[in-house]
Amino acid sequence: MDVSKILNIQHPIIQAPMALADSPALAAAVSNLGGLGSLGAALFEPEQIRQKIKDIRELTNKPFNINLFSPTESSNYSAAEINKALHDLNYFRNKLGMPECNHIDIPSVTPFAEKLAVILEEKVPIFSFTFGILSSEIIQSIKSHGIKVIGTATTVREGRLLEQNGVDAIVAQGYEAGGHRGTDLKITSINDALIGTIALVPQLVDAVSIPVIASGGIMDARGIVAALILGASGVQMGTAFLTCPESSIHNKHRECLLSSSDESTWLTNVFTGRMARSLKNDFLLEMNKRHCSVLNFPQQSALVKDIREEAKKQNNPEYMSLWSGQASNLCQNKTAAELFNELVNESNMYLKNIGQKFI
Amino acid sequence: MDVSKILNIQHPIIQAPMALADSPALAAAVSNLGGLGSLGAALFEPEQIRQKIKDIRELTNKPFNINLFSPTESSNYSAAEINKALHDLNYFRNKLGMPECNHIDIPSVTPFAEKLAVILEEKVPIFSFTFGILSSEIIQSIKSHGIKVIGTATTVREGRLLEQNGVDAIVAQGYEAGGHRGTDLKITSINDALIGTIALVPQLVDAVSIPVIASGGIMDARGIVAALILGASGVQMGTAFLTCPESSIHNKHRECLLSSSDESTWLTNVFTGRMARSLKNDFLLEMNKRHCSVLNFPQQSALVKDIREEAKKQNNPEYMSLWSGQASNLCQNKTAAELFNELVNESNMYLKNIGQKFI
Repeated sequence: MDVSKILNIQHPIIQAPMALADSPALAAAVSNLGGLGSLGAALFEPEQIRQKIKDIRELTNKPFNINLFSPTESSNYSAAEINKALHDLNYFRNKLGMPECNHIDIPSVTPFAEKLAVILEEKVPIFSFTFGILSSEIIQSIKSHGIKVIGTATTVREGRLLEQNGVDAIVAQGYEAGGHRGTDLKITSINDALIGTIALVPQLVDAVSIPVIASGGIMDARGIVAALILGASGVQMGTAFLTCPESSIHNKHRECLLSSSDESTWLTNVFTGRMARSLKNDFLLEMNKRHCSVLNFPQQSALVKDIREEAKKQNNPEYMSLWSGQASNLCQNKTAAELFNELVNESNMYLKNIGQKFI
Repeated sequence: MDVSKILNIQHPIIQAPMALADSPALAAAVSNLGGLGSLGAALFEPEQIRQKIKDIRELTNKPFNINLFSPTESSNYSAAEINKALHDLNYFRNKLGMPECNHIDIPSVTPFAEKLAVILEEKVPIFSFTFGILSSEIIQSIKSHGIKVIGTATTVREGRLLEQNGVDAIVAQGYEAGGHRGTDLKITSINDALIGTIALVPQLVDAVSIPVIASGGIMDARGIVAALILGASGVQMGTAFLTCPESSIHNKHRECLLSSSDESTWLTNVFTGRMARSLKNDFLLEMNKRHCSVLNFPQQSALVKDIREEAKKQNNPEYMSLWSGQASNLCQNKTAAELFNELVNESNMYLKNIGQKFI
C-alpha cells in the first residue's frame, strides 16, 4: 500500500517536523496543497502543543503530522560537571557582551506521556516520533485512536524494530539530513548510524514491508524522483522548506542557508547535546577547538539557551544553531506554495520524460 | 555531450579502479560488455603497470581505464615517530603469532611521472586520478596523447578545479563509497569533504558543464537510475564488483562483504594513513580503542603491510583491510558478466516503466 493512501494525502511529500523552526503556517500551507505538513512539538509544553494543533486546524482541514521525541533516559550530572560546562560557555557570553553565568537550575522535563496525551485527545491525523523506538504498547495505543504513526530510522536495524512495533511507515533519515539525527543511539563518532540516503533507502526497503519515506539531502524534483527509484514511497524534506517565509527561523539563518555550499555543514552535539547537522559558525568551531565540555541532551540545550537567544536578538548567526542538510546550496527563496507546486510539477515532468532515456 | 560518447563506451557504467582489489580480468569483462573496466595502478611499479595494461589488452579490444594517485607531499617523520607507530603495531603481530618488528626501512616511492610515462607510452584509452587535482599542464599533456582524462571530486570545490584544469569528466565520490576517499584534503574529522551522494551529485552537476559520474553507495539498477535522475551522466561502482570472482580480493573479504549490513563499515585511516571505508574488524577497532599512532600515507601503509599479508596467509579477515561501501549488504555472488548484464537490463526496465508512476 502506498504511503499517500495510508496518510490520506495526494502527494507523498512530507514537510519535515523541525522543532522551533517549523510553524503552523508552514505545515498548513503544505497540507493544503496535498502534501503532509508537520510540526515538531517536542520542545513545547502540553498546553502549547494543544494551541499549535488548534492553530494548524484553523488554517487547514487536511491531514497534518505532529512529532515528538521518544522519551530518553536523562544523564545525571554532578554540580561540578554542570559548572564546568557552564564555565566553558562564558567565553561565548563574553563574546556577545553578556554577563557570565555560573549557576543554572536546569528545568525538569515534562514527561512524554503528558505531551502524548494531548496528541491523543486532539486525535491528530498523523503522529511521528524520533530519537528511538516507542514500544508496541504505546504505538498500538496511539493507533487505537485512529492516528497513523510514523517512526524514524537511521539504520536497517532501527527500521526493523519500528516495523515490528507496528508503525504505519518509516522515515529513513540519511546522513545528509539537517538538524538532529533521529537515531536511538548516542552518536559519538563518524561511524555510528550515519548511512547516506542512497545506501540506506534500498537496504531498508528490502528489509521491511511497510512504506519507507526517504529523507536527507533531498531538495528538489531530482532528489524526489531519485528517492522513488531507490524504492521509497515518499520523501520527507526539511532544509528545502526552511528558507520559505512561513518557517520560523531567524532571518540571518535563512540568509546563511541561501549563501551556503556543500562544504558548509558540520555534524555537532555542541548546541543541544545530541548530534545534529548545522551550518558551520564560530560557536561550533570554537566549542570544538577549545575542547569545551558538552553535556548530553537535554542539559546541554538548557545551558546554551541564553547564548542562542541573545545571538538572535543581536542578529548574529555566529552563535545561533543553523540547522541545515548537506544540499542547502539548493535552497530557494520561495513561498511554501511556490516551492511545493514546483516540486510536484517538476517531479511529474521527470517521471513522464524519463522513459525516453535509456542507458 | 554524454559520458558514453566521450569515453567511447556503450553503457555509462564504470567499474571503479580499486588498487590491488581489481584485476585485468575484471576490467576486461566489464569493458567487453560495453561498460568501462578500470585498473588501479598506483601501487605498482612502472614495468608492472606496463604488464597489467598488456594483460588487459589481451582480454579486450574495448576502451579501459588506468588510475593513478596524484602525487602528494610526503610527511617527514623522525625515527622516534616511526618506531612508536611500529611498536604500537606489535600488539597485532603478537595476536597473529608473528615476531615483533622494531625496525623498518620505508621504501621510497617511485615518482608519479615515471608511472604516468607508461600510461602515455601505452596510449591507454582513458586515464583517471584520485587524491588531488593534477595541474592543467599535466592534464593537457595527457590529453595530447589522445587519452581521455577523468578526475575525482568529493566536493563542488574540487569539481570546479578539475573542470578548470581540463578533465573530460568528473567522478563525484559520495561519502558512502568504499575504499579511499579521493579528496585532496587530509581528512581528520567527520566534517571534511564527506558529502553524501544524493547531496553531492546535483550540486556538482549544477556547478560544472562537463559530465559528472556518480559514485558511492550505488549497487544495483535502483542506484544507477537514481544517479541518472540526480543529473549524473553515468555511475562508477566499486563494492558491487568486489564480490565477483574476477576481483582479486581474498575470499574471506568476499565472504565478509556478502554477510555485511548497513552498519558494518567505518571510515578509518589505520590501514594506510589515508581515510578509507572498510568493514569493521578487530584491527581497526583495536587501533582505535588503543589510540595507536597512525602515520600518514604512504608510511602507515608500509608499516602495516606485513600484518595484512600475514592475515591473508592465515585466512583471518580480522587483520585485513576489508574495503567496502555503505551498501555492501546488496553485494551479490555473481560473475562480472552476470552482474553487468543485470545492471543494464534492470536499469533499462526501470527507465521504461517509470513513466507510468506519477507522484
